Amino acid sequence: MTLVYLDNNATTMTAPEVVDAMLPYFSNKYGNPSSIYDMAHSANDAVKKSREIIADFLGAADSKEIIFTSCGSESANMAIKGALDVKKNKKHIITTRVEHPCVLNLYKDLEKRGYRVTWVDVDSNGDLDISRLLEAVCEDTALVSVMMANNETGVVYPVDKISEAVKMKNPETKVFVDAVQAAGKVPINVKDTKIDMLGISGHKFHAPKGVGALYIRTGTMISPLIVGGHQERGKRAGTENVPYIVAMARAAQLAKETLEDENTRVKALRDKLEKGILSNIKNAVLNSKSKNRVPNTTNIGFQYIEGELILLHMNDEGICASSGSACTSGSLEPSHVLRAQGVPFTSLHGSIRFSLSRYTTEQDIDYTLEKLPAIIDKLVKISPFQKELNEIFK
Amino acid sequence: MTLVYLDNNATTMTAPEVVDAMLPYFSNKYGNPSSIYDMAHSANDAVKKSREIIADFLGAADSKEIIFTSCGSESANMAIKGALDVKKNKKHIITTRVEHPCVLNLYKDLEKRGYRVTWVDVDSNGDLDISRLLEAVCEDTALVSVMMANNETGVVYPVDKISEAVKMKNPETKVFVDAVQAAGKVPINVKDTKIDMLGISGHKFHAPKGVGALYIRTGTMISPLIVGGHQERGKRAGTENVPYIVAMARAAQLAKETLEDENTRVKALRDKLEKGILSNIKNAVLNSKSKNRVPNTTNIGFQYIEGELILLHMNDEGICASSGSACTSGSLEPSHVLRAQGVPFTSLHGSIRFSLSRYTTEQDIDYTLEKLPAIIDKLVKISPFQKELNEIFK
Repeated sequence: MTLVYLDNNATTMTAPEVVDAMLPYFSNKYGNPSSIYDMAHSANDAVKKSREIIADFLGAADSKEIIFTSCGSESANMAIKGALDVKKNKKHIITTRVEHPCVLNLYKDLEKRGYRVTWVDVDSNGDLDISRLLEAVCEDTALVSVMMANNETGVVYPVDKISEAVKMKNPETKVFVDAVQAAGKVPINVKDTKIDMLGISGHKFHAPKGVGALYIRTGTMISPLIVGGHQERGKRAGTENVPYIVAMARAAQLAKETLEDENTRVKALRDKLEKGILSNIKNAVLNSKSKNRVPNTTNIGFQYIEGELILLHMNDEGICASSGSACTSGSLEPSHVLRAQGVPFTSLHGSIRFSLSRYTTEQDIDYTLEKLPAIIDKLVKISPFQKELNEIFK
Repeated sequence: MTLVYLDNNATTMTAPEVVDAMLPYFSNKYGNPSSIYDMAHSANDAVKKSREIIADFLGAADSKEIIFTSCGSESANMAIKGALDVKKNKKHIITTRVEHPCVLNLYKDLEKRGYRVTWVDVDSNGDLDISRLLEAVCEDTALVSVMMANNETGVVYPVDKISEAVKMKNPETKVFVDAVQAAGKVPINVKDTKIDMLGISGHKFHAPKGVGALYIRTGTMISPLIVGGHQERGKRAGTENVPYIVAMARAAQLAKETLEDENTRVKALRDKLEKGILSNIKNAVLNSKSKNRVPNTTNIGFQYIEGELILLHMNDEGICASSGSACTSGSLEPSHVLRAQGVPFTSLHGSIRFSLSRYTTEQDIDYTLEKLPAIIDKLVKISPFQKELNEIFK
């Protein structure tokens, strides 16, 4: 049974080396890191070493700046709510229209709770209106929150430059970066930026689902989201998830080692897939033409046909991909990211995200390029938009 | 190298069956449960089935009442902050002086944020002053929060009766039960109670650290703690931790199957350990004489000697135990639970918690009973309280 997994922005396979790294911490070195006997020390040492590895992965100056969390959503909620809680008198937030739902929905919730949110637009390539963002920074701006790479289109935002410019205008404004889709795909080096907080999620770079991290620059005050025990220097209560922390560190090491492969071989496969689809399928259009994209992602609209139907037919051939983000699946709303780019309704509903990983092979891409034209052809034939499609295919 | 692990209230070994159950979800069935292809369906089905198993484990009427979280601390924070957020006009909370630090510190934080907290006392056996608790319930009481079993002493509180009585006085008051130390040790059957919310943590019953659940009775409104995607019916954002959710469900099945063993064989071993220590070591005193205790826990004070020293010497013999909760280790404060019971300073600082599990053997107990008297004897000899000790040992 063929399985071609092109949905690595939704989640990734846990790398076998990562599974091997965490296994001893389930039934052998299972001590609670807070306990004082030797077995607990092994667990505590493993957490400490993992913290150093993640600090290195993100280019943090000090491992104390890394807090382990349970996922990217927790990292974002902790950073955003935590930073706002210590600056209760400031009520203005700036973010983008294309953030991940975990960030977007939180800001919508904060709007209802009395915050004023400036939503910055993107252009038709998916690039951000940075001058608009900077214009909006004012005395009352508590937080600027910009993702590093978009999950649906792969567009990369210059968060280093944005953080510098924001701080020039208001040094008190905190900058949070959701780097969930950037980690493992492009280099991250927080110490060379003015970013105050940056969140990542392990399962986007071949660690398991259920572990993340939040970088918090030394000196940045935030209230904890999960209050309780002294773990994570009082910033995140709860017994440390030792196996997954070890797993995420191992995954980070592997991601660092394979970053070159990601930006050469994987990028070449993505480009081959993209060019192959655009040249062989007449109603296919590239949704984000930005020059700045992560190397593994492409988002392509198939005009006048339905994305969910494409995905189901791809599934029949063993190919996994997605429309929108996994976190919005089940809702019938078309992608907020593509709408923000102004993608016309003619291709909006038929847009598919293909996201590769270091496990993607040339055979996977060839197979997809072989199967996809017939799928699209079949759906074009049953589309109610025959007149418009005839124009395209004539 | 001998390892006698008597610190199962801090954390437990992940059961081998539990590791086996979760392994396929790392590198084979690794799809995001929100995605629409077949591989994702297997993950989604596994989460659904696990939810039914946990519902059954807690005696919930409907699996929709179960929300998966990352730990007991998150369950507690979600329940408490979430319930208070939807009743912003009510500012009174009732809890006990002996709650776990994750709950206790959260209420201390809420006190600073304008909430009035009634702290209910326990007697010298560790039993709760229930009449005082009920007296305190008033129109303004948003929440009553009582643990089901104490982590340090093992004392079990009649949360079913408390919930009934609270609702009689004020049907609007929400009842949250921290059942982290009860799950797997005593039966839980929420549908026969008036409990609104109940939290558990997988790693206390042989699932891994990093997964928990929150029972929320149908009709109980709470705001989410982690806002974002649609997961967990919009109550908890973040890609589901499929392997650990499957793991916790397997652990719950095993805990249910071995509950009888826990309450017969494990209880007998605990009683043997307790009686053996109390009869063979003259300065040993039982800290909680309550008739209602979980079967695996005993807390014994060794008068005029230092708990940390006892633990370090036990560690040298390969025996793992603890003083206080793991979450307060590192702080030099003596146990808030034992202080609430009025344990005198003479034994307070030398109190040790022994907590067994279904993996504890008769040999483990015999070995501990063989090694402990010599350890205590050595520490008695170097204690600065020779006069007082001579009185005891004469």
